[in-house]
Amino acid sequence: MAGYFDGIPAIRYEGPETDNEYAFRHYNPDEVVMGKTLRDHLRFSVAWWHSFAWPGGDPFGGQTFERPWFGDTMELAKLKADEAFDMFRILQAPFFCWHDADIRPEGETLAENLSRLDEIIDHIGQRMEGTDIQCLWGTANLFSHRRFMAGAATNPDPEVFLFSAATVKACLDATHKLKGANYVLWGGREGYETLLNTDLKRERQQAGRFLSMVVDYKHKIGFEGTILIEPKPQEPTKHQYDYDVATVYGFLKDFGLENEVKLNVEQGHAILAGHSFEHELALAASLGVLGSIDMNKNDYQSGWDTDQFPTNVPEMMLAYYEVLKAGGFTTGGTNFDAKVRRQSLDPEDLILAHVGAMDCCAAGLKAAAKMLEDGKLEQARNERYAGWDQVQDLLGSDLATLHERALRDSVNPEPRSGRQERLENLVNRYL
Amino acid sequence: MAGYFDGIPAIRYEGPETDNEYAFRHYNPDEVVMGKTLRDHLRFSVAWWHSFAWPGGDPFGGQTFERPWFGDTMELAKLKADEAFDMFRILQAPFFCWHDADIRPEGETLAENLSRLDEIIDHIGQRMEGTDIQCLWGTANLFSHRRFMAGAATNPDPEVFLFSAATVKACLDATHKLKGANYVLWGGREGYETLLNTDLKRERQQAGRFLSMVVDYKHKIGFEGTILIEPKPQEPTKHQYDYDVATVYGFLKDFGLENEVKLNVEQGHAILAGHSFEHELALAASLGVLGSIDMNKNDYQSGWDTDQFPTNVPEMMLAYYEVLKAGGFTTGGTNFDAKVRRQSLDPEDLILAHVGAMDCCAAGLKAAAKMLEDGKLEQARNERYAGWDQVQDLLGSDLATLHERALRDSVNPEPRSGRQERLENLVNRYL
Amino acid sequence: MAGYFDGIPAIRYEGPETDNEYAFRHYNPDEVVMGKTLRDHLRFSVAWWHSFAWPGGDPFGGQTFERPWFGDTMELAKLKADEAFDMFRILQAPFFCWHDADIRPEGETLAENLSRLDEIIDHIGQRMEGTDIQCLWGTANLFSHRRFMAGAATNPDPEVFLFSAATVKACLDATHKLKGANYVLWGGREGYETLLNTDLKRERQQAGRFLSMVVDYKHKIGFEGTILIEPKPQEPTKHQYDYDVATVYGFLKDFGLENEVKLNVEQGHAILAGHSFEHELALAASLGVLGSIDMNKNDYQSGWDTDQFPTNVPEMMLAYYEVLKAGGFTTGGTNFDAKVRRQSLDPEDLILAHVGAMDCCAAGLKAAAKMLEDGKLEQARNERYAGWDQVQDLLGSDLATLHERALRDSVNPEPRSGRQERLENLVNRYL
Amino acid sequence: MAGYFDGIPAIRYEGPETDNEYAFRHYNPDEVVMGKTLRDHLRFSVAWWHSFAWPGGDPFGGQTFERPWFGDTMELAKLKADEAFDMFRILQAPFFCWHDADIRPEGETLAENLSRLDEIIDHIGQRMEGTDIQCLWGTANLFSHRRFMAGAATNPDPEVFLFSAATVKACLDATHKLKGANYVLWGGREGYETLLNTDLKRERQQAGRFLSMVVDYKHKIGFEGTILIEPKPQEPTKHQYDYDVATVYGFLKDFGLENEVKLNVEQGHAILAGHSFEHELALAASLGVLGSIDMNKNDYQSGWDTDQFPTNVPEMMLAYYEVLKAGGFTTGGTNFDAKVRRQSLDPEDLILAHVGAMDCCAAGLKAAAKMLEDGKLEQARNERYAGWDQVQDLLGSDLATLHERALRDSVNPEPRSGRQERLENLVNRYL
Repeated sequence: MAGYFDGIPAIRYEGPETDNEYAFRHYNPDEVVMGKTLRDHLRFSVAWWHSFAWPGGDPFGGQTFERPWFGDTMELAKLKADEAFDMFRILQAPFFCWHDADIRPEGETLAENLSRLDEIIDHIGQRMEGTDIQCLWGTANLFSHRRFMAGAATNPDPEVFLFSAATVKACLDATHKLKGANYVLWGGREGYETLLNTDLKRERQQAGRFLSMVVDYKHKIGFEGTILIEPKPQEPTKHQYDYDVATVYGFLKDFGLENEVKLNVEQGHAILAGHSFEHELALAASLGVLGSIDMNKNDYQSGWDTDQFPTNVPEMMLAYYEVLKAGGFTTGGTNFDAKVRRQSLDPEDLILAHVGAMDCCAAGLKAAAKMLEDGKLEQARNERYAGWDQVQDLLGSDLATLHERALRDSVNPEPRSGRQERLENLVNRYL
Repeated sequence: MAGYFDGIPAIRYEGPETDNEYAFRHYNPDEVVMGKTLRDHLRFSVAWWHSFAWPGGDPFGGQTFERPWFGDTMELAKLKADEAFDMFRILQAPFFCWHDADIRPEGETLAENLSRLDEIIDHIGQRMEGTDIQCLWGTANLFSHRRFMAGAATNPDPEVFLFSAATVKACLDATHKLKGANYVLWGGREGYETLLNTDLKRERQQAGRFLSMVVDYKHKIGFEGTILIEPKPQEPTKHQYDYDVATVYGFLKDFGLENEVKLNVEQGHAILAGHSFEHELALAASLGVLGSIDMNKNDYQSGWDTDQFPTNVPEMMLAYYEVLKAGGFTTGGTNFDAKVRRQSLDPEDLILAHVGAMDCCAAGLKAAAKMLEDGKLEQARNERYAGWDQVQDLLGSDLATLHERALRDSVNPEPRSGRQERLENLVNRYL
Repeated sequence: MAGYFDGIPAIRYEGPETDNEYAFRHYNPDEVVMGKTLRDHLRFSVAWWHSFAWPGGDPFGGQTFERPWFGDTMELAKLKADEAFDMFRILQAPFFCWHDADIRPEGETLAENLSRLDEIIDHIGQRMEGTDIQCLWGTANLFSHRRFMAGAATNPDPEVFLFSAATVKACLDATHKLKGANYVLWGGREGYETLLNTDLKRERQQAGRFLSMVVDYKHKIGFEGTILIEPKPQEPTKHQYDYDVATVYGFLKDFGLENEVKLNVEQGHAILAGHSFEHELALAASLGVLGSIDMNKNDYQSGWDTDQFPTNVPEMMLAYYEVLKAGGFTTGGTNFDAKVRRQSLDPEDLILAHVGAMDCCAAGLKAAAKMLEDGKLEQARNERYAGWDQVQDLLGSDLATLHERALRDSVNPEPRSGRQERLENLVNRYL
Repeated sequence: MAGYFDGIPAIRYEGPETDNEYAFRHYNPDEVVMGKTLRDHLRFSVAWWHSFAWPGGDPFGGQTFERPWFGDTMELAKLKADEAFDMFRILQAPFFCWHDADIRPEGETLAENLSRLDEIIDHIGQRMEGTDIQCLWGTANLFSHRRFMAGAATNPDPEVFLFSAATVKACLDATHKLKGANYVLWGGREGYETLLNTDLKRERQQAGRFLSMVVDYKHKIGFEGTILIEPKPQEPTKHQYDYDVATVYGFLKDFGLENEVKLNVEQGHAILAGHSFEHELALAASLGVLGSIDMNKNDYQSGWDTDQFPTNVPEMMLAYYEVLKAGGFTTGGTNFDAKVRRQSLDPEDLILAHVGAMDCCAAGLKAAAKMLEDGKLEQARNERYAGWDQVQDLLGSDLATLHERALRDSVNPEPRSGRQERLENLVNRYL
């Protein structure tokens, strides 16, 4: 039987001048930048859900895609996995990510869910053998089934907490089995539709305990990957508890988990929360919790999560600059939490969307590396704060002393240009 | 010389059926609700800046108001204070709030600023004598003058930090002198215009130290009011560090100040951060940091802070419900951080805007009290979580145990209606 | 077999003080306001799609509702219709609305679609017999099936235009057969996902011709209802051509249809387009194209169409004020394009959501009528423009003449207060 | 006396590899693209208001800039003009734009305003002599002074209409005298703060008559430039009548002015109205009303008009693509309606902000030209609609005929991929 991607050539690097749609123009996996190959810098990952499980529906329309693996049997689930690995091969994608619900059909019972998960994990494990393809992260889908409609860990019904705990335990085991580099929690239903029926304090407590249990279990089984939380402000719920980087950080502090858990930051979620992507990355880095990224783009004119493949290199440069400045990825990577538009029906669309995105990421990261190595931007930043070098004692002082000192010295600060436009020009030079 | 508000009668309660524009329809200060007078529940406060200092400009137009006290002399500043107290009398407003820059003209030097502050504080103190009018809070304006263009505590220039510290020390002293119930910090410039020139980590450290010094100084001088931070996500800056309640909470935790500092939550700032007002209040209450409120409204179709007088009673009921559920205000109150529109030129506009707002607040609070006393909403909320009462041990367990238990019990949670619309109907009954 | 709504009593008016959840507190259908019963003023309509066809899914989760009529057979479609009429009876709802896709299962072919439509229309017609229940409007669903993914009338593929034309012809015939008061077109896919593949000019031309054909056909068959366009700015597409009232008006002018077609204005769509609902209504009225309304509410903090049942009476008063000022509905009515939240699983939720919404509408309309009859608001508005009464010749003049006159008269206009807050206070008196 | 920009070298093209901050990297004015020099394609214009008149204030802070020409005398106004021309020289900027209020101090009377305008226009005319510098457009500031607080043409007070008419007459004369290529109207106050005091119908009528008078007067004096309206949805008002391109088009149609008036489309205003810039440009072009552009950028995370200098070349490519596809500018040009940030205090900031922006525009336009000349995008677009070429009669048909034809042919349209991601990849190749 013919494969879905038959006829699509493996994508190779041909350089910026190529006319070949099926070639990388910027992503040369073996190119070394700042002492590391692009492959090891970018750690590209394909998302199972969008690329293989999403049917193309939206709130006003149904399925548009007709993938040969759509359906509810384990046989089709395995076909899906096989085609996925064919796509990874074509793309030279070193990593993939999954929810349990992406890779196995929903069972009638918890037990069936878990046994199907075992079976498909074995199958995926076999597909990985003899390849360099790795699991960037696994995660449990605790939001699509109606049982999760009012939350998973934060559900008013303790049975859902129990069901969720069992599921996460199994997914963490599965990720461990696949030698996953991270395990992710996205609380798509950990939030509320209306405050009127919600006890914020209680639900926060449930969430904190749940996360603590996940961390404990990770240590218990010797999983060495990173536990990641993925912030999102809203959608599907009106309000989600993991609103943004700063909110999650406060939550981690409250439960003493700030050294155990890092963040998976997504561009689209940053935008929905009113932040730029680079803000969320810089903030996470400054708080020591930057873990991994979902590199998609949101439509700036749409108020929902459009999860588009990224295309804007200048924006991506700013994102990778924060990643590189923070030392680059360790266990994290660049996941495309991106879906082709629902009108992009063909296998070629699926492949070429990734190709374009990988190219843009590579171009962005290379520009960011140039900027970081050149050092002019950091130099300008440091000079702006240079006045503090002489007076670090200020921060150790107290109001009364500072008041006296300010009056004694007749302090009268003279504003200095922030030079924003000059720095913007500087940034544009590296593109 | 004629006073600005001459001819405007003192506002008295006349009940809902009155036709008199110059009367309260809902706010009867002596009415007792849940064991306290409305005066003591609501603790209304007039904001000096909007009502007396704002000239009516916007980004595309200049001054529209012609107040007799506009100008840069101490004499006019005193006239302004006198007229302000006349307004407080007319409105029966028990509290007022101020920035240093609202009540005294800007001096040439720090020393002049501070001596002018002393002088006007004495004048205000005299006006307070023999009245019941109190200071809800004082604060330092560390954002309007060009010296603060790049921040106050978080400025790259340590001289600005010094200037700010001296100013806050003086403003805290002044608030203490006036027996203010709280002291507020709003970090209007504690944020950035561009990440390109900003060191987030360093600026956060500066902000944390600054706040710690304020708390220390409060204790040193024996100020018994509450230190309040007022969150806002952006405007004037692109990004402000005190983004929202959750963000400030994480910041307080980081610097060990979560038991020392509370929050002044504003409706308009909540909206700009993507939250409902009641969300921010409920969250602050659940985290133990609800201090005071700014009760204005923002235009839902405008992306900036419109600071309008509140008019929508159903929304205000939800806000006061959270306040009452949390036990009501202690040191906090209801400040109108609201300005009449720039086309509302007349003294009558200024008075009647407050009258309408006070009435709406009273109507909202009374409806909220009815709802809380009736208990049906809380009962419905509690019933939703009742399943947890039997299984509190779940939260003390671990993933492996829960996994085993879930499989053993073949747990299969059955969704239950969240009953949102029924609760919304219920809420509407109290209006 | 038991009916879905068995056990739910028919809803009767019991007045504001009732404790009965299953009673109207404000909606007394027979109450006469401004010379007309509330029934005839409000012309409530239940939307088939949300109340009977929507499964409770969202972009991150599947079906939550379990209605006995869900499924793909004509038998279930008839059961659905029967249950719908039971609900109309319980609610005393005088009208209903439908898409073809709501009332019949999708067929394999166009012919099958149309014959199924015929069959179910006959069934619905029978259910209507002997009742007062009427069809407010019918419409064709030209957006859910994958064939419409790139538009209906504006599709790049003329076959879709053809399919759409045939479908609309049949739906208009069906609406005519049911004596529908209006026929609606909502161009959910008449827009684009990306400009890169779109020819705006050509698609606009297609849309204009399509609408002209609909108008011609209406006259041909003697349909006396109104053709309505429902504006929406985006969602599901990135951009929809019928963006808002002003945009549709320009489109109608361009194709000479401004006297043939009116608008069905929805609160949620107004909000998504950056307008208040009352703005869109007032604008439509001022342009002579106000037809009907979809009275739902959108969550002000969500960037997508939440289609919630309305709850905020002050907002609804402002909407109905515009309707009443424009003379009230003729063929139009109040359709609830509103869905219970996906966690609201029970039949009671469905009924009570409508009950609460009808009550709020009635309260809003009664307050609006009081305000209009009282006349104070209109008087204030007219006085503001009174200066023009003496100088209407100004508008017939020319720049040079006016220039001369302004200099001759040393014209120096003195600003007058816009009195916004006083008017807001006034409005609140009628609630 | 030293000039403000002394010491800043004239900017010359040095190519992409230059390290010189004071050089163009992409803008070579003499480079020929698609048969025209970049100078003639781009027609860069400096905005007097932002670059010379804006003091650096924002809603929360006052003046930050200290320009030697700030003040209220004619002498300073002339100094400002002289420095402006020095800046045009340094930048090789071929055009400039102005409001009356930018170039002359506000007078006590209308007569004084107009005589000062005459005087400064003469001065500017002298500065233009012997240079290639031209006036792209003039306009009247009918929004900053308090007399305009409730509108200019749409004011409830006819005296303001009169004052505005006289002012526009004088500004149009002045523009004519300077041989301006266009005359612009931006209705910054033509809108409302509250519907409660507004008569939409009447104000629209006033606006229509006003614009008609402007058009008539243009013809009367033989002004051959284009009359341009600049749409903006809101800010400073809650709602502006010239909301967006589609709204203005409907307005022009209503008053029969669609062949007399074109549009000046601004990126920031497009964004505030919920559109992409390229959408507004493409729509204006498709309606035959594309006139000129304001090429700035808005911060996607801010809800107000940030008017920043543009930096993102991929976005600018898409904008210029629409301009080039529409045949390029005739009387229009590229105005930077952009201001340096209020922290950018230095003369260098002012110059270099323009340099960077001009470079980005040039890079964008060159990429757009390559894309247009290559033709692949247009080819793909045309192929998508190719099916229509055989069946243009469809659009001339009627519903009944099409219904019959669809059934006869058993039409069953097969969706085809929209290929969005492939087109996005294609676009990125030209950068």
